[in-house]
Amino acid sequence: MKFYDCAPAPSPRLVRMFIAEKGLSEAIETVEVDLREKEQMGEAFQAINPFLTVPTLETDDGMRFLTSNGCWRYLEETHPEPALLGTTITEKARIADAVWRAEQEGFLAVGEALRNTAKGMVDRALTGPHNYAQIAELGARGKQRVEHFFELLDSTLADQVFFAGDHFSAADIMAFVTVEFAGWLKLGLSEDATHARRWYDAVKARPSAAV
Amino acid sequence: MKFYDCAPAPSPRLVRMFIAEKGLSEAIETVEVDLREKEQMGEAFQAINPFLTVPTLETDDGMRFLTSNGCWRYLEETHPEPALLGTTITEKARIADAVWRAEQEGFLAVGEALRNTAKGMVDRALTGPHNYAQIAELGARGKQRVEHFFELLDSTLADQVFFAGDHFSAADIMAFVTVEFAGWLKLGLSEDATHARRWYDAVKARPSAAV
Repeated sequence: MKFYDCAPAPSPRLVRMFIAEKGLSEAIETVEVDLREKEQMGEAFQAINPFLTVPTLETDDGMRFLTSNGCWRYLEETHPEPALLGTTITEKARIADAVWRAEQEGFLAVGEALRNTAKGMVDRALTGPHNYAQIAELGARGKQRVEHFFELLDSTLADQVFFAGDHFSAADIMAFVTVEFAGWLKLGLSEDATHARRWYDAVKARPSAAV
Repeated sequence: MKFYDCAPAPSPRLVRMFIAEKGLSEAIETVEVDLREKEQMGEAFQAINPFLTVPTLETDDGMRFLTSNGCWRYLEETHPEPALLGTTITEKARIADAVWRAEQEGFLAVGEALRNTAKGMVDRALTGPHNYAQIAELGARGKQRVEHFFELLDSTLADQVFFAGDHFSAADIMAFVTVEFAGWLKLGLSEDATHARRWYDAVKARPSAAV
């Protein structure tokens, strides 16, 4: 298996951390794609992933998965332990809910704020093969959405240990990477978000957070 | 089980169609939520789903799933046949990829265009408990994204029968509901999108498309 990664970028980190939690960091070959040099826009990578994004996961027989959801599902089904997408039926569905929530309202909101304001991304307000101009108002809106997500994170974690319930899951990976990604916008968990801070410290202490 | 639905709305249709494909339309009680009368904003529904959205699925022991992904996962795990989230490992991961693609680049792009231009949604540019003002440029951008998604749909379906491969899946539900939802914007598959049209006609002929 081959994992197309970019060490400083948040999206591939979602899969890198998942791989580490599965204990597969050594087993899977990593190919670094230099997003800063726009390597993903070049012909070579275009042939690997026409959506020009990492994470991308390639199996030994040449199948490729092109989104974090697809990569996660493949890794979970081929390496079920430890489960990161749930063990019981209820857990699986709760995790699906929580991953979606954290991605839509957290991760993608950070991306929205960043891509619509960064000087180096004038025509790259969305990832992918098509150029989209920045929309200044999305910078401010994205930040507001991130703040709302952090409030949700804190209130959810007042009642449960992890974002989708009693066990660490992919939803925690999505939410944790979101918090660190939000640092790029100089946004962070507020001082009084004690539940989210307790959870953040616990996830930060996991070896997978350091890969 | 109880399914909170709204007959004219596209989001709950994702789950309604999934339920029909599973042959569960009679077995699951449907509760109609009148979005046109803003019933989802009222206290009663807020207690059911604090994100104020349908679809919402409630189990007999009171668990609730609040996103189409969560509802689908619960239904798939409790009623595996016919599989709509994949049978083999590869299928499961390809469907996860395709569902994500169709939702992000199709379904949510239609929603973006619509919610940022509709007169009745001035402060409701995003669903959920927080108000967000419309951003006029997102109306045009959303439409452009939908056109790009339709091109992707057609080119993908040139090589395969369904959007995620050889079998009908949840990815087809997401893409099909997107095409019909785009009609609200007066957007549709172009005349020369012959592959997407062949697929659309086949999905439209399924009984689940009529529920």
